[in-house]
Amino acid sequence: MNVENHAIVVHGGAGVLDMGTISARRQLAYRAGIREALLAGYSLLEEGGSAVDAVEAAVRSLEDNPLFNAGKGAVLAADGTHYLDAAIMDGKDLSAGAVAGVKRVRNPVVLAREVLNRGEAILLGGEAADEFAGKVGVELTDNSSFTTVHRMKQLQRAIAQGKTALDHEDLFREKKGTVGAVAIDGEGHVAAATSTGGMTNKQPGRIGDSPLIGIGTYAADDTCAISCTGNGEQFIRHHIAGSVSAIIRYSGKTLYSAAELAMKQLPAKAGGFIGISPEGEIVMPFNSLGMIRGWIQSGKEFIAIGRKDGQS
Amino acid sequence: MNVENHAIVVHGGAGVLDMGTISARRQLAYRAGIREALLAGYSLLEEGGSAVDAVEAAVRSLEDNPLFNAGKGAVLAADGTHYLDAAIMDGKDLSAGAVAGVKRVRNPVVLAREVLNRGEAILLGGEAADEFAGKVGVELTDNSSFTTVHRMKQLQRAIAQGKTALDHEDLFREKKGTVGAVAIDGEGHVAAATSTGGMTNKQPGRIGDSPLIGIGTYAADDTCAISCTGNGEQFIRHHIAGSVSAIIRYSGKTLYSAAELAMKQLPAKAGGFIGISPEGEIVMPFNSLGMIRGWIQSGKEFIAIGRKDGQS
Repeated sequence: MNVENHAIVVHGGAGVLDMGTISARRQLAYRAGIREALLAGYSLLEEGGSAVDAVEAAVRSLEDNPLFNAGKGAVLAADGTHYLDAAIMDGKDLSAGAVAGVKRVRNPVVLAREVLNRGEAILLGGEAADEFAGKVGVELTDNSSFTTVHRMKQLQRAIAQGKTALDHEDLFREKKGTVGAVAIDGEGHVAAATSTGGMTNKQPGRIGDSPLIGIGTYAADDTCAISCTGNGEQFIRHHIAGSVSAIIRYSGKTLYSAAELAMKQLPAKAGGFIGISPEGEIVMPFNSLGMIRGWIQSGKEFIAIGRKDGQS
Repeated sequence: MNVENHAIVVHGGAGVLDMGTISARRQLAYRAGIREALLAGYSLLEEGGSAVDAVEAAVRSLEDNPLFNAGKGAVLAADGTHYLDAAIMDGKDLSAGAVAGVKRVRNPVVLAREVLNRGEAILLGGEAADEFAGKVGVELTDNSSFTTVHRMKQLQRAIAQGKTALDHEDLFREKKGTVGAVAIDGEGHVAAATSTGGMTNKQPGRIGDSPLIGIGTYAADDTCAISCTGNGEQFIRHHIAGSVSAIIRYSGKTLYSAAELAMKQLPAKAGGFIGISPEGEIVMPFNSLGMIRGWIQSGKEFIAIGRKDGQS
């Protein structure tokens, strides 16, 4: 085991994120949230923990942070309810778990991990997923506990303007988003996890790309681990996470080249993704104005929001 | 427009399908059902209709046929309820629609088409999808109207034996399955559609590969149209439909070679898929003992069930 090779990358959503419109105080809060999530995963990796445990811990940290659109602080659908989606995948054996449209699970990524551990269905949707959570002892909570004053105001504005809004659309001054993590552990295994509340004022029942294995989330030890964020329908249409993996496997491209090719499929401002290869190569491409993102690798740390905000 | 190039391929599920265990009478019934579905789509193509209309018509025909595991005749989940999934995608513009876990829609593929036409969310899950059907005027029915005596007996046997069964597992003497269609129209556009009741005694809320764009269903004019059938979790894990498309696009392989590479990812007996390329190349690979399948192209017709049952 070579625990020196471990690394973790997280994102807190992509979108307009025009640096000029985000207060310095809020930027600091985003950075602190990303750092906390990175450390939650990295500390496990340092102790020789697995990549799949690390991405679960990182995403759980972001779900508990009301600044991001996942778990506490998730956006509201058109019916004033939170519908939460999450997925997790272990590149070691391609085991995966995902939940869509859960309403009462405090940490959707933890439930996704239970689905992975169970090893039967990969994707559970709706009420049945909440009921499964109750059966396996995953912490439940009231749907209203996810609500923040900010999200209620967002929904009211969206309804007033008749818009379905991606969390980061310029409809809203404050920018927040879907969260995700990818990691490689000391044994060379990769993993990915993603969690989201979807889009403000979305049609109830709408499932985006986040909980879809091969679409918004993917991990395979021979190729890469990917977690996407942005306009979910565009990521579905171009099955982005699986495409990056397939380009590496079948065309012999590097993660960097594969990520470039996949991004070319997306229309402007669609969003971006984070990725890591078994060699520890990290990519964080996006075609939105910004993507809240960061990594820790080989004792170095990087955190950024906008495009010109250091290395992207 | 060259309407001479149009073609349609359908499948009625993959599985054990050991020819020795299926009565001659039942084999004839399967073949008649496949032929009816082929003609439902092909007649539209002959009139200059679109590929997406053709695959919708073919899948609708199979949903209405109680022999197949989709719509009427779908299998029952562990709670004695039918949860139906369907997807449809138009390769012309990558527009897509899908529904998961609907309980009251007579033809899930028709609802998926409405989702495609609406052009907002791609995937709708659960109660909300049924409610959307009511709003847009898609025909509703009672969940019990999908039930056949055969499916009730299957569920009773599965519960007694404590098994979750893929429709075609050898647990059951009579073999039936997920349905799907791919087509190319006279203008060179391709499309794909899939519909299923999932697995007998499945966990309620389990969503398989069928309604997932890029996983069980995919269509892009520059690559191919694909519809999968088999063990859904394996098709999700290997994002089969999207992989075939990505291999063609990024590695310059033919549909035939791409299909071979994708099939190599699947474990034994996982199932198979049907595919068509913009050039009219047809593939129907499977690693189960059989796959109910057929095509009509250039005035020729082919229908088969087992492996040694003519061209595969």
